[in-house]
Amino acid sequence: MNSKEMENFLKNIKNGDISIEDGMDKLKDLSYSDLGFAKIDNHRELRVGYPEVIYCEGKTVEQIKGIVSLMLTKDVNILGTRATKVMYEGIKEICGDAQYNELARTIVIKRKETEPSSTYIALVTGGTSDIPVAEEAAVTAEIFGNRVERIYDVGVAGIHRLFDNLDVIRRAKVIITVAGMEGALTSVVGGLVDKPVIAVPTSVGYGASFKGLAALLSMLNSCSSGVSVVNIDNGFGAGYLASIINKL
Amino acid sequence: MNSKEMENFLKNIKNGDISIEDGMDKLKDLSYSDLGFAKIDNHRELRVGYPEVIYCEGKTVEQIKGIVSLMLTKDVNILGTRATKVMYEGIKEICGDAQYNELARTIVIKRKETEPSSTYIALVTGGTSDIPVAEEAAVTAEIFGNRVERIYDVGVAGIHRLFDNLDVIRRAKVIITVAGMEGALTSVVGGLVDKPVIAVPTSVGYGASFKGLAALLSMLNSCSSGVSVVNIDNGFGAGYLASIINKL
Amino acid sequence: MNSKEMENFLKNIKNGDISIEDGMDKLKDLSYSDLGFAKIDNHRELRVGYPEVIYCEGKTVEQIKGIVSLMLTKDVNILGTRATKVMYEGIKEICGDAQYNELARTIVIKRKETEPSSTYIALVTGGTSDIPVAEEAAVTAEIFGNRVERIYDVGVAGIHRLFDNLDVIRRAKVIITVAGMEGALTSVVGGLVDKPVIAVPTSVGYGASFKGLAALLSMLNSCSSGVSVVNIDNGFGAGYLASIINKL
Amino acid sequence: MNSKEMENFLKNIKNGDISIEDGMDKLKDLSYSDLGFAKIDNHRELRVGYPEVIYCEGKTVEQIKGIVSLMLTKDVNILGTRATKVMYEGIKEICGDAQYNELARTIVIKRKETEPSSTYIALVTGGTSDIPVAEEAAVTAEIFGNRVERIYDVGVAGIHRLFDNLDVIRRAKVIITVAGMEGALTSVVGGLVDKPVIAVPTSVGYGASFKGLAALLSMLNSCSSGVSVVNIDNGFGAGYLASIINKL
Amino acid sequence: MNSKEMENFLKNIKNGDISIEDGMDKLKDLSYSDLGFAKIDNHRELRVGYPEVIYCEGKTVEQIKGIVSLMLTKDVNILGTRATKVMYEGIKEICGDAQYNELARTIVIKRKETEPSSTYIALVTGGTSDIPVAEEAAVTAEIFGNRVERIYDVGVAGIHRLFDNLDVIRRAKVIITVAGMEGALTSVVGGLVDKPVIAVPTSVGYGASFKGLAALLSMLNSCSSGVSVVNIDNGFGAGYLASIINKL
Amino acid sequence: MNSKEMENFLKNIKNGDISIEDGMDKLKDLSYSDLGFAKIDNHRELRVGYPEVIYCEGKTVEQIKGIVSLMLTKDVNILGTRATKVMYEGIKEICGDAQYNELARTIVIKRKETEPSSTYIALVTGGTSDIPVAEEAAVTAEIFGNRVERIYDVGVAGIHRLFDNLDVIRRAKVIITVAGMEGALTSVVGGLVDKPVIAVPTSVGYGASFKGLAALLSMLNSCSSGVSVVNIDNGFGAGYLASIINKL
Amino acid sequence: MNSKEMENFLKNIKNGDISIEDGMDKLKDLSYSDLGFAKIDNHRELRVGYPEVIYCEGKTVEQIKGIVSLMLTKDVNILGTRATKVMYEGIKEICGDAQYNELARTIVIKRKETEPSSTYIALVTGGTSDIPVAEEAAVTAEIFGNRVERIYDVGVAGIHRLFDNLDVIRRAKVIITVAGMEGALTSVVGGLVDKPVIAVPTSVGYGASFKGLAALLSMLNSCSSGVSVVNIDNGFGAGYLASIINKL
Amino acid sequence: MNSKEMENFLKNIKNGDISIEDGMDKLKDLSYSDLGFAKIDNHRELRVGYPEVIYCEGKTVEQIKGIVSLMLTKDVNILGTRATKVMYEGIKEICGDAQYNELARTIVIKRKETEPSSTYIALVTGGTSDIPVAEEAAVTAEIFGNRVERIYDVGVAGIHRLFDNLDVIRRAKVIITVAGMEGALTSVVGGLVDKPVIAVPTSVGYGASFKGLAALLSMLNSCSSGVSVVNIDNGFGAGYLASIINKL
Repeated sequence: MNSKEMENFLKNIKNGDISIEDGMDKLKDLSYSDLGFAKIDNHRELRVGYPEVIYCEGKTVEQIKGIVSLMLTKDVNILGTRATKVMYEGIKEICGDAQYNELARTIVIKRKETEPSSTYIALVTGGTSDIPVAEEAAVTAEIFGNRVERIYDVGVAGIHRLFDNLDVIRRAKVIITVAGMEGALTSVVGGLVDKPVIAVPTSVGYGASFKGLAALLSMLNSCSSGVSVVNIDNGFGAGYLASIINKL
Repeated sequence: MNSKEMENFLKNIKNGDISIEDGMDKLKDLSYSDLGFAKIDNHRELRVGYPEVIYCEGKTVEQIKGIVSLMLTKDVNILGTRATKVMYEGIKEICGDAQYNELARTIVIKRKETEPSSTYIALVTGGTSDIPVAEEAAVTAEIFGNRVERIYDVGVAGIHRLFDNLDVIRRAKVIITVAGMEGALTSVVGGLVDKPVIAVPTSVGYGASFKGLAALLSMLNSCSSGVSVVNIDNGFGAGYLASIINKL
Repeated sequence: MNSKEMENFLKNIKNGDISIEDGMDKLKDLSYSDLGFAKIDNHRELRVGYPEVIYCEGKTVEQIKGIVSLMLTKDVNILGTRATKVMYEGIKEICGDAQYNELARTIVIKRKETEPSSTYIALVTGGTSDIPVAEEAAVTAEIFGNRVERIYDVGVAGIHRLFDNLDVIRRAKVIITVAGMEGALTSVVGGLVDKPVIAVPTSVGYGASFKGLAALLSMLNSCSSGVSVVNIDNGFGAGYLASIINKL
Repeated sequence: MNSKEMENFLKNIKNGDISIEDGMDKLKDLSYSDLGFAKIDNHRELRVGYPEVIYCEGKTVEQIKGIVSLMLTKDVNILGTRATKVMYEGIKEICGDAQYNELARTIVIKRKETEPSSTYIALVTGGTSDIPVAEEAAVTAEIFGNRVERIYDVGVAGIHRLFDNLDVIRRAKVIITVAGMEGALTSVVGGLVDKPVIAVPTSVGYGASFKGLAALLSMLNSCSSGVSVVNIDNGFGAGYLASIINKL
Repeated sequence: MNSKEMENFLKNIKNGDISIEDGMDKLKDLSYSDLGFAKIDNHRELRVGYPEVIYCEGKTVEQIKGIVSLMLTKDVNILGTRATKVMYEGIKEICGDAQYNELARTIVIKRKETEPSSTYIALVTGGTSDIPVAEEAAVTAEIFGNRVERIYDVGVAGIHRLFDNLDVIRRAKVIITVAGMEGALTSVVGGLVDKPVIAVPTSVGYGASFKGLAALLSMLNSCSSGVSVVNIDNGFGAGYLASIINKL
Repeated sequence: MNSKEMENFLKNIKNGDISIEDGMDKLKDLSYSDLGFAKIDNHRELRVGYPEVIYCEGKTVEQIKGIVSLMLTKDVNILGTRATKVMYEGIKEICGDAQYNELARTIVIKRKETEPSSTYIALVTGGTSDIPVAEEAAVTAEIFGNRVERIYDVGVAGIHRLFDNLDVIRRAKVIITVAGMEGALTSVVGGLVDKPVIAVPTSVGYGASFKGLAALLSMLNSCSSGVSVVNIDNGFGAGYLASIINKL
Repeated sequence: MNSKEMENFLKNIKNGDISIEDGMDKLKDLSYSDLGFAKIDNHRELRVGYPEVIYCEGKTVEQIKGIVSLMLTKDVNILGTRATKVMYEGIKEICGDAQYNELARTIVIKRKETEPSSTYIALVTGGTSDIPVAEEAAVTAEIFGNRVERIYDVGVAGIHRLFDNLDVIRRAKVIITVAGMEGALTSVVGGLVDKPVIAVPTSVGYGASFKGLAALLSMLNSCSSGVSVVNIDNGFGAGYLASIINKL
Repeated sequence: MNSKEMENFLKNIKNGDISIEDGMDKLKDLSYSDLGFAKIDNHRELRVGYPEVIYCEGKTVEQIKGIVSLMLTKDVNILGTRATKVMYEGIKEICGDAQYNELARTIVIKRKETEPSSTYIALVTGGTSDIPVAEEAAVTAEIFGNRVERIYDVGVAGIHRLFDNLDVIRRAKVIITVAGMEGALTSVVGGLVDKPVIAVPTSVGYGASFKGLAALLSMLNSCSSGVSVVNIDNGFGAGYLASIINKL
């Protein structure tokens, strides 16, 4: 409610165009549905542009089913991330057309079609083992209506693979780089493009990779500009942010 | 034993009002029952106000049963934390009315009623996944005779959920905030109230959350005043401290 | 604004008891004074019970003087923490009776007397080197109207010094323990009292103390209950929280 | 050089439209000027859209002067970051109209006017001490032709200050949040907007802030979506990335 | 393609000795086979001297089989590292003579004989538990045609075991030391030889070994010269590098 | 071989009292039995006073059996640490009277009686969960012929339990303290005795105990003198060192 | 006061052999002198065998002078550690014969002669840069009446230097090893002797030595038995502990 | 002394060709000169191929002068690393032709000419700020008689600079890469060559570079093979190792 809206609102209260009861509801308007264990954010689509996504990890199957049930009453697309197969089977009982992506560990329930964007997101991985995290980003971006171009396994150990795909990377509106180990891919890509690069460190590696810490630090210290970083293995976060930027 | 008590004690020894034997017992008074593998602190209730709580993790079922058996001879309420179902089943063999809270991983044996406090503790969580830790705090506070108001899943990603519950939070005598990931909830609550805030970082999260380290550091560095922090996932510690403060 | 107040407020708007303009002001009420580089929180005393404190580190002398000037127009006590002597000299130019505590690195401007509390805060340090942090806590607690009992240099290396002062510690309403190195003092005190213990790790130590990390971890893992922890060297935070608890 | 360009290039070589010598130059085209200690990237503007920025830290005054001298021969705007006053004085000897921003530690040499963008970047700080880092971001974004709206000192300890400025934040095309200590500002802002949020942790704080690590981890683990993170104190990186996004 | 080759190449294009189509192929020459999930680097042998090795961890059995199938069409030796028995069984279905080394967790497919080198690599371990990592190095070095001398379990706790084998160590062209715990073996060996020493820290140990961190730091800080370090448990990397040096 | 022995040895070679062959054997004397995967240190008892102990973790059952078989040919007591039950069953096949201590995870084969020492080692634990580590120390010290006095579960949360056992602790020749969580027990004991204190941090705890790191740092920073520290959970190391000191 | 003493004490009170006043004094016996900022432990010599040592770091010159003044009234040797020259000059004003060791940063005031022990402490350093820490250990051990044999600069990079001095090391009753960088010296010495080895990691080194952390971890993970560790640069702690052991 | 030498030696003792005294000297043969604070390793050139290098950091000027004086009596080239200008001035007093390299912080005393090697070492840096570390490597390699080719400031942010210099890098016998920040240069170079790559992380960077830790981890986790790593800023170590390899 900005200043003008506020003035109008109060005037309407004064002249009775809005009743006291409606006024009270209005003031409470940033509302949600309360399930006790969860408060579903009905206002989110209005406020930040997308429906709430269910982060499944750490929730019981019953809790997830409760949240989905409530969401199904509204005609929105639903995305569950970090979902196990068991969670998916629970959801299927209440929603037969839910889809599970085993690689990305996502559950998707489609209720309205979204036209793919004209511009696209380039999704680049260093190796084959980074694909699950990349796919979480891809599924996220796609359900929010973005076109995604996948360029997988083009890490710097064989840098010609990257150069051979440079055109498709450079023509993207925004680029996601997904890499584990030392994460050098991000800096190389960042030095070759003039678009925003979202870097996703992965926990791929062993020993002194410290479950993704090496890649994370590497990306944070990138000598290339135009790069920013999300949490280790956070494919969803990268896909979500890329979607926002792609639609600017 | 302060100075006056000490003087009286020695005078009583001198004039024979206290026998040597009794005197020796008296001096040994900070006593305990020795089970070999454990020394049960009988004096604790007197000294710090509550009966000893059994931290079950790392103890064998037989050890826990031994400790409980001894405690059952005294008419006190018993709380076991971090208890597995197997431990509970062992306890049940010697105490049929023991109760197990699977979410909170607590065993409770009630022997005397405690009247709920008039003031209450507000127990706030950032998300649904933080509830197990919160419930450990709730069970602890309740067995020690406190009223607890639960406000769950009001993290800052949808901050209106918090504001909508601000009244009940502000009216509490002491507030516990339970949050994982970046733990920002604590600072926001701390900036809105004039009561002590006990922050419990949880290990909810992944990647650079480093099993709760991110939330822990976040809470320790809170820019809001009136905040202090307990160990990661330490629901018991928060509930215990909140109980002390609530009863001041 | 709780529900009743909200209803009344809207009724008053409707019947004209509150004008639109006043209503707008009212809704904006959580207000502050904007200096550009700083936004002074005028509403804080109402909201969290105390006037804003100036954390001086990282601010220029001119910025601090600007903030103090504005605060001086209101009749409140002012506390500056982590202040250098140079900052103090700047403040003195605009406020001749400002007082500097070199040990605690605090600036205090007193405008109204506060009656010392009947109950008191026990302030315990492990060593002599911990005193500066303790004094920051003491100055903070005292300006907020609390009585403080100092028990310094009673660390566990000579534990009889602690026991000899146990009475004054146990009679406090809340206890602050300030210790560096391994911070064992906190656990020992925590096991001997039935009052809230606020632990302040200090950066006193060397080598594997890692500038207070050892003491911090030690306190977070205290085997004694009723203990919570603030940031390393955060004397202010401990004094502030102790003040809140002491006045409950 | 994409496939079509490559084909044309080779055809031109074949039919003599491009001479062997020119062909060789063309293939070498990603060229630079070699100063021995530095290789100035002449091709950068073409490749990533901006002239090279001089990161002054760790370079000698003579080295910086050499780089600037070479750049001055081309008609471009020049930005030096992390520059000391001594470096600035060195530059002034060869370029009288160079400007130094002491707060941001930047040197700016303006050679062509850039029209400010219609959309703008919102630049939000938690506290006053975060301003130097924010100003580095502001200077960077402005020299690249962006309009910047500064909203300083609106950290979550007094969250109404943030809400009061929410309109100007929400209307931005991209938002930069700059915060030290626990960095909770980022998550709160992220939950209230539907625009990309670039988070800059600062080294403001002490003790367990570990020179910005706490804020960094906090931001990486933000429960709000649409957030990405740059290195601690990396105002330049945030300003640069915001500029790219603002101009999409 | 160096300058002369480039000139010749362009001349050949010009005079038609190389057709446009061949020229395009030539420029694309740093090529690979694209399996979608993986891009097999056909050019690697030319570029860095060895065929690509399959790092199996994090790949599905189907992915590994796909990569091996493609490689089998070329007459090269194949090495799979960090392979489970399940992966091996998958490979066996398409290549009956594949060999699995359970200790080293390697799969080897031999297609051409390599004559063992005249000079040899000395492979030294601190303890028995370090042998699996050492064997990964040995298998790697051997498939690339190197002679390997194993000197196992000669850690510094019984340093005479090392001295008794010093001759065979000193006569090697390059030495690999494999050790966990405190990794002191590396420094002792480094001080006794005039050959390159490649140190492999292992995750053998417990507690403050932090999964190999102690050995890693120890080796990086070796007071002996001529020592360099690879990742924790990276037997392959050490074997590969030793092979390059042994063949210089 | 000290100077005198060396002189005698060479004289004996010269005058033929020792043959060349025997001399060569003599010079090789720091010998061991080579099993390929392990080099058994036959000289150890002479050199450091005790037979070699088998650290079982990371060894296969067959390797351990091979080592034990060789040791059985000599008439020595054998100690295996960090042994699983499966390892024990393997040993039992070749040595029926081997004994397994499930708590301490030790295998003991007794071949000669050792008279218990007159002085004793005090073995103190903070809690019940620390007992397994303590028992490893106890078994080690006992097989090397030391008397051990166990004082378990006397942590500082109920410090009177410690004081009540102070006499038996003070009369020991050397003291081992075993504690997890914050490990404050060590400092308290260290401040009360004038004997060497060997501190064993344990991985007992959770959250910010970081698997024993908190206790380790706490003990390393002990404000009490006379304290030194071994690795986390290193009961064997403490028992071994205590044995050396007890026998001085 | 053990049981018998307690009984006797109470009997003496009863029959008047000890007056009430004397009894009170007796019970208070673990006494100290209170300077406000410091509590001097008069009872320490009785309790742990040595007079209190002044850890000067973090204390003001005035505080140190106050402590020394009080100590001078008793006829004891005084040791100040981590003392600056300025502190020493302060002490000299009140005690002309105080001696300053610039290398060890110690102040020594000798009041009674101590006969050097017949057995001795071997003090071994890896390099020349470790000597300051070693000298702190030496000064400490010597003032407590121990003979110290210095063997400096015998690190493992030139291990023959160590072997050449092995005799004097082996004949010691207890050994202190002082080393920075990777600290391998400790493990090598530990494997060659049958005496207690006290390891002192030093902050000598750079980069990944992380101010002594590498040496600390290395020593904690020593594969040699009989080794324990004190804090980084803690020469005093090693000298003190070695003294206790040498006098057993 | 190998087996044959040993046999001959003992035969010579027996038949009197070597006297007892000479024999004793011979057995002591791994000798050094003892300065008390340092033991100069005379045998080092024989044993590991090079004269001892003086690591100046942490040594006093007098100590360094003492070491150099002794070395000057032998006709060897001398290298001092990490030397301050003050140290250099001290050396100059005893050796007028000593040379100081301010950038590399090295002191060089040349006594015999070394013919430059035919093969060369390629020395590559990511940026201008990495040059000091690179120069330490260059000075080291050159004094040991190696030809060094410097390729500075070719980091991956402008990767064409690297490709333009690929020929000179590929023709080297061994390559040193020196880089701070995220250190991605190493992986890119490693993927393009078939020679050993020695990676030197530098402390160039800020914030989450944690003084070189990010670059160190990045290099240890390099996805390119043939790479090994030395300590942060360890130019000497890289130059020394490269020299050994270059001369194989």
